[in-house]
Amino acid sequence: MKTQRQIGIKQYKAAGFVGEQQELVRNTVIPYQYDVLRDKADTEKSHVFDNFRNAAASLSGEDVGDGFYGMVFQDSDAAKWLEAAAFSIATKPDSELEEKADELIALIASAQDGDGYLNTYFTIKDRNKRWTNLLEGHEMYCSGHLFEAGAAYYEATGKRELLEVCLKNAEHIYNRFVTDGKEGYPGHPEIELALLKLYRASGDERCLELAKHLIDVRGVDRDFYKKEKQARDWTVWGNNADDHDYQQNGQPVRQQSDATGHAVRAVYLYTGMADMAGETDDDELFKACQRLWESITARRMYVTGGIGSTVHGEAFSVDYDLPSDTAYSETCASVGLMFFASRMLEIRPSAEYADVMEQAFYNTVLAGMARDGKSFFYVNPLECIPGISGVSPTHRHDLTQRPGWYSCACCPPNVARTVMSLGQYAYGENEDTAFCHMYAAGEVIFKNGVELKCDTSYPFDMNVRYKALKGGKTALRIPRWSTETVIKLNGKKIEPDISEGYAYIALNDDDVLDIRLDYEPKLIFASGRVPELTGKACICRGPLVYCFEGVDNDGDVMSLRLTSDIVTEVIRANGLDNVPALSVKLLRSKGVDRLYSREKPTLTDAYATAIPYFCWANRGETQMRIWLPIVL
Amino acid sequence: MKTQRQIGIKQYKAAGFVGEQQELVRNTVIPYQYDVLRDKADTEKSHVFDNFRNAAASLSGEDVGDGFYGMVFQDSDAAKWLEAAAFSIATKPDSELEEKADELIALIASAQDGDGYLNTYFTIKDRNKRWTNLLEGHEMYCSGHLFEAGAAYYEATGKRELLEVCLKNAEHIYNRFVTDGKEGYPGHPEIELALLKLYRASGDERCLELAKHLIDVRGVDRDFYKKEKQARDWTVWGNNADDHDYQQNGQPVRQQSDATGHAVRAVYLYTGMADMAGETDDDELFKACQRLWESITARRMYVTGGIGSTVHGEAFSVDYDLPSDTAYSETCASVGLMFFASRMLEIRPSAEYADVMEQAFYNTVLAGMARDGKSFFYVNPLECIPGISGVSPTHRHDLTQRPGWYSCACCPPNVARTVMSLGQYAYGENEDTAFCHMYAAGEVIFKNGVELKCDTSYPFDMNVRYKALKGGKTALRIPRWSTETVIKLNGKKIEPDISEGYAYIALNDDDVLDIRLDYEPKLIFASGRVPELTGKACICRGPLVYCFEGVDNDGDVMSLRLTSDIVTEVIRANGLDNVPALSVKLLRSKGVDRLYSREKPTLTDAYATAIPYFCWANRGETQMRIWLPIVL
Repeated sequence: MKTQRQIGIKQYKAAGFVGEQQELVRNTVIPYQYDVLRDKADTEKSHVFDNFRNAAASLSGEDVGDGFYGMVFQDSDAAKWLEAAAFSIATKPDSELEEKADELIALIASAQDGDGYLNTYFTIKDRNKRWTNLLEGHEMYCSGHLFEAGAAYYEATGKRELLEVCLKNAEHIYNRFVTDGKEGYPGHPEIELALLKLYRASGDERCLELAKHLIDVRGVDRDFYKKEKQARDWTVWGNNADDHDYQQNGQPVRQQSDATGHAVRAVYLYTGMADMAGETDDDELFKACQRLWESITARRMYVTGGIGSTVHGEAFSVDYDLPSDTAYSETCASVGLMFFASRMLEIRPSAEYADVMEQAFYNTVLAGMARDGKSFFYVNPLECIPGISGVSPTHRHDLTQRPGWYSCACCPPNVARTVMSLGQYAYGENEDTAFCHMYAAGEVIFKNGVELKCDTSYPFDMNVRYKALKGGKTALRIPRWSTETVIKLNGKKIEPDISEGYAYIALNDDDVLDIRLDYEPKLIFASGRVPELTGKACICRGPLVYCFEGVDNDGDVMSLRLTSDIVTEVIRANGLDNVPALSVKLLRSKGVDRLYSREKPTLTDAYATAIPYFCWANRGETQMRIWLPIVL
Repeated sequence: MKTQRQIGIKQYKAAGFVGEQQELVRNTVIPYQYDVLRDKADTEKSHVFDNFRNAAASLSGEDVGDGFYGMVFQDSDAAKWLEAAAFSIATKPDSELEEKADELIALIASAQDGDGYLNTYFTIKDRNKRWTNLLEGHEMYCSGHLFEAGAAYYEATGKRELLEVCLKNAEHIYNRFVTDGKEGYPGHPEIELALLKLYRASGDERCLELAKHLIDVRGVDRDFYKKEKQARDWTVWGNNADDHDYQQNGQPVRQQSDATGHAVRAVYLYTGMADMAGETDDDELFKACQRLWESITARRMYVTGGIGSTVHGEAFSVDYDLPSDTAYSETCASVGLMFFASRMLEIRPSAEYADVMEQAFYNTVLAGMARDGKSFFYVNPLECIPGISGVSPTHRHDLTQRPGWYSCACCPPNVARTVMSLGQYAYGENEDTAFCHMYAAGEVIFKNGVELKCDTSYPFDMNVRYKALKGGKTALRIPRWSTETVIKLNGKKIEPDISEGYAYIALNDDDVLDIRLDYEPKLIFASGRVPELTGKACICRGPLVYCFEGVDNDGDVMSLRLTSDIVTEVIRANGLDNVPALSVKLLRSKGVDRLYSREKPTLTDAYATAIPYFCWANRGETQMRIWLPIVL
């Protein structure tokens, strides 16, 4: 059923904007996160290395006492770092980094039990509690992240040690849930998508079979967690075992239609489902994925590609409940949305999926990381009001500034690995066609023989040049937002066939393809069904959502009003280097200061500076707003 | 320090709108609530009568086992009903009702311990736990409500039985906290304002002294609850003893400036403080009250006179955090705001206080009760979206329809007693002047000799006629919202002295005073500091805030847009009898239905129906919105 697949991690060498982001991750984030894992950074204690050391010691019969520290899923931080390191090494060999990775891999291997089990929380704390709490225990979640790292590291280096650890662990899980037929499915989905990667890296059919089993069994017994809870005498957080929405287990997955519950869990699950549907030609499963995709993107997604609007359970709310200032919109959820989009795209190359993938990446995912790579947002509001944000009881989660690290450190390494593997999302291929989903600058060598070089300042500039180092059939996504697209082949305008937002063009060796997308900043309006956004508009330019920050606008963006005729000019904003800001002609409202008044506010012409949303909160605590009231 | 005081409960006989509301309470709410207390109504179990019976039996040495049911403050429901019944009897004798009240009073008296202690929760459950949990135990809160009922019933009937029960209970508390010097102050303030009423009804100076003590001691030891919690081995809800904002005990009350924490507790406390300041000429205390008043009304109050914007702790949030759709805005908090306003007014007759008192009454307090008197809102949002309100995790408290009763039944009886005693808020007096704070139709006999008859359809009509049955000096509030006020004395326009929004006019016997206030519906704008309300406006007419409901507007009020030139016509709305609705000329936005789109919504001329906010949710579940985007 897959019509094209992601390229491998070595096939894309980034340049331009993506290259800059990758260098930032390579030079700053990966070394920093490595220090965090070893507790050498001046931030939240991590203890990840020590957890593995203590687990290994415990397996050797040493008494390590209270030797575990951190969240129940602390192990996954090591896996995510390894995966990012693998991606980095794949395109830029680095023997020092590889040595560090090998050491960590050896440490992880030493913590693996004889039967393949591998989890420091349970190994250190109480081996008898293994598999007794799938609802909260995150054992399969940690395994999943390890499998992703194992597959990536093998692909990057050809070294099998971590892969073998993973396969042994997968075999352990397979034996338990498939061979021995034990009941259960993971509280936090992730292993499903990871097993498919491990399957493709290793060829071990049991990985595919186990993934299929875990997808198929989910929600068939919706009371599984309830029974599990009754049968155990311990808990991690006392999670409610009956919240089927939160757990995506109210129905078998093939019957689900609404994206519900914990947003990261949801999109990780849907990613596994879509990947499985494509891998096994499962049309019923794909149809469920289409319904869930529609539920998210047509009714439950922010304009920033953020999802999971409520802090309660870090979860999807009901349709059209998309508050700006109290948004949750977790960075990891947008990373997961990219995963889901990419797998849907593999089945059906349609701009519908690629547009959202790009929207999530260039806005919420990138907003998750400071421009210096040293601090991170977990939560990504669309409006920030110092004095209320981070302070009011309903806004406590909406911080005004990125912290350096989190005790629950899922988001920073998730941004790192996504940036480092962007080529996999940007490019795909099948036997005869090279697919360009995102205009990522750099060089791509496709396995089908096509070789492309992409020159562009995208997303800051909308001119993209592809040079065919080696020609062949190429499919180029034309974003839905680009209403005026000019394509030139060797300087001559062409009008290629476009199907589902993809232009199919045959390139000869040395052909030069120039694409010019819509330059103009545009106003975006929301459906009248979103109460929060009635009477408002925001500005997008290409894939970038723009926002207004107080620091550029006399400290006050609440008084800004858009008009329907938008006039802008590209300018530079202080402290944002080469990022194109916009000077926007608009109106500023001046009213009396009384709480309520009959005095009509006056509107005066003004110019205000808008910057790409992902750059917000890099210049101190200040007001920020994406959606402005519009005066029509 | 008091320059005028509330009139007594027998001095005002209501007519017009207030009369209708009182008849509704008298004929429907009081009988219904009586049935609830005895568990004869088809609603939430109350058990109030049974609690008193079981407490009495327990005092006689009977084993009543698990004989208490309900909230720790369940007793207060009886007291609030008695108080409403007293107000009803005061102006319309009713021997049957009085008999029921006397029976309940006898029942209450039978549950009083020999030492004056009176609380069924502790008497039934464990007498040893008395006074060990002031943070959560609500003992003084329940006493306070009983004192209010005792004072009112004595004033209404001249019967002393309940008054004696109250004085004995007050003496018990006085002995504990004043004579014996035990530490502590009530977790839920209320007794302070009640003791002042009991003092005025009985003349017992110890009541004044105890109230003063409890006000003075609050916050001096801000860790009192913490120590108390450490010293006890039980809890009601596990409340946080360190949340000084919630408890209004971060500082001694005289130093407080921000209205914080549980909104009902806050305004009950401030009411006691203001009453005490006036009673004892305590300027420092009055200054604190002025700061707290300013904190509420200038920065933390809805246009509906609702306060306490967050569900978290039913509390005040930070300045300018006033969300419409997730508002808490508890009915009882607006009742308490009326109390606070009335006490401030006693010290300084200024329209500043009376305007807010009226704003709270005609909007949030009345919205708390259905038009048939049979169902009640606890929470009063300014926007309702079926599908989100009451459903989304952040909107669960914002119900779309009034339930019949609540397990925590504070609000329904609070509305009842406020409506029944409206004369006390509407009229005041001192030795030589009769004060008209609200234009409440009916007859008022002032102790200073003035007798007024007020004819008006206010708040539905802005023409008010006062006839002086007996003349004298009269002070008439001119609301700040009435920019064009015409006053005629015996048909002749006069321009009286106006001081702080009060027109002072000397009336002779049989003089007729006609006041014509601003008729015109006006647009109200909010300060630019309220992020929620930027680019929006609402409509007020006199003291009434208007809202738009889907039921009058094709099911869709989200697409309505106001313009700055407001044109309206008074009409009738279906199912709302004599309530004047408004037909408003405005614009309706029509956009595409996609979640986000570049397609500009079109605006077409339209007429929409607005109704007074207090009438919302009387015609089925439907959208409701007060603040609309404004197209300038």
